[in-house]
Amino acid sequence: METQLGLTAGRRLLDSAIARATELGVPVSIAVVDAGGHVVIKARMDGAPLISVRMAEDKAYTSAATNLPTSDLHPLVQPGEPLYELIAAEAGRVITFGGGSPLRSQDEQVTGGVGVSGGTVEQDAEIAGTAARAWMGA
Amino acid sequence: METQLGLTAGRRLLDSAIARATELGVPVSIAVVDAGGHVVIKARMDGAPLISVRMAEDKAYTSAATNLPTSDLHPLVQPGEPLYELIAAEAGRVITFGGGSPLRSQDEQVTGGVGVSGGTVEQDAEIAGTAARAWMGA
Amino acid sequence: METQLGLTAGRRLLDSAIARATELGVPVSIAVVDAGGHVVIKARMDGAPLISVRMAEDKAYTSAATNLPTSDLHPLVQPGEPLYELIAAEAGRVITFGGGSPLRSQDEQVTGGVGVSGGTVEQDAEIAGTAARAWMGA
Amino acid sequence: METQLGLTAGRRLLDSAIARATELGVPVSIAVVDAGGHVVIKARMDGAPLISVRMAEDKAYTSAATNLPTSDLHPLVQPGEPLYELIAAEAGRVITFGGGSPLRSQDEQVTGGVGVSGGTVEQDAEIAGTAARAWMGA
Repeated sequence: METQLGLTAGRRLLDSAIARATELGVPVSIAVVDAGGHVVIKARMDGAPLISVRMAEDKAYTSAATNLPTSDLHPLVQPGEPLYELIAAEAGRVITFGGGSPLRSQDEQVTGGVGVSGGTVEQDAEIAGTAARAWMGA
Repeated sequence: METQLGLTAGRRLLDSAIARATELGVPVSIAVVDAGGHVVIKARMDGAPLISVRMAEDKAYTSAATNLPTSDLHPLVQPGEPLYELIAAEAGRVITFGGGSPLRSQDEQVTGGVGVSGGTVEQDAEIAGTAARAWMGA
Repeated sequence: METQLGLTAGRRLLDSAIARATELGVPVSIAVVDAGGHVVIKARMDGAPLISVRMAEDKAYTSAATNLPTSDLHPLVQPGEPLYELIAAEAGRVITFGGGSPLRSQDEQVTGGVGVSGGTVEQDAEIAGTAARAWMGA
Repeated sequence: METQLGLTAGRRLLDSAIARATELGVPVSIAVVDAGGHVVIKARMDGAPLISVRMAEDKAYTSAATNLPTSDLHPLVQPGEPLYELIAAEAGRVITFGGGSPLRSQDEQVTGGVGVSGGTVEQDAEIAGTAARAWMGA
């Protein structure tokens, strides 16, 4: 397992996500960011909706920035819940539904994030999770 | 049916929307965007509210960017629903109530979007849908 | 000559600009705004560069907002000149090279603006001027 | 030569740019955008400066949006020159020094852009030009 998330690892994560998306038959956009939340690699599969390009990056950023899968944030931002105001406070950057996974080192430090957008929330989360597990197990 | 959404098709869509709006007796703004979400033509009928100019474009963009009618997004962004946070995350760009329709090629690829604003949500959706069907059947 | 700049006048201005651009053989984007600086009609000719869509509107806005052709502002914003800081102060909205013309009523009040982008600065200014004169003489 | 700029072409352009950057010994970021100015693929080589990630995309966008190499814009935006104000008017989106190249179809229509950032202006332009020629000749 690597500790630095460089372009070689980024490409491997991207290919892993594309392979899973192809199995599911859903074109998506995928973004891999480093511990600083900045893009290492980002790509849009042919046929993925336009909006997915930006949302994939925002999901990857959110996971790197919070060290949480974006799906964990979803219940917390509903009306009355502890982080309700987060969606407005961080509007345009943070996405709090599924599709983003943090990438962690063996000592649980954040080394980056992967974000997927273009399918259903469940599909996006499944593809991002597959890529993240490939990284953790590397 | 054309595959490229140029100014000739844009004008036809605009005229079709204006004709339907005139039948309904409601002044609206109408925007037609291409597959990249960029304006091909955009107009405001006399008497349409000022806010409609920008909202028509945002609805057209949203439909082109998601390949969905904006009315399909409305239930998904309610509190507790899967895309609740989308309205904040994409604030200023995405509109998730009725009035935007994607324009699709025969193989269901997005070729653009049409957005209408200025009437009730139902009127806007009816006018946008009329223009979109005129395009699909062309 | 009309005093209100509605969609009928907007379309006439647009057609007049398209006719002149076609004579010059240069595809451009054209925007017509009212006295409030808001779009009445806006269109992109096939082949006009993507950046022209937004710049045409900004030029039309600038002319309506200043009651000046945008080319008049160009010398005033050079380093050391009186309005040097304007380009930064109003960045993203004001454009100070040629291609925008104010639309005036008989008593010299601003009734709107027309903006053209996509050719050389001289071509854009020529096309905008043609449309503006068509309006003033109407 | 392809007419649609999809992920297969995007990866080929990216690899071509990385190969040239490696020959020159300079780590850069590279972005490939489609005709609408939206990212198809984008990557940062290990060691490329952080600012290069965003600048590569802005250069690619600028070339797709203007159908010009960004280096062609450099002389035009100097004080006193025709497009001097452009750098402020389009701040945050348009970059007017070398490193961006348009990607054109055989009939000279814009099909996208490639942007490179991280080296000197000359290196960035050389790498972007190499990738663009690889595309044009494909």
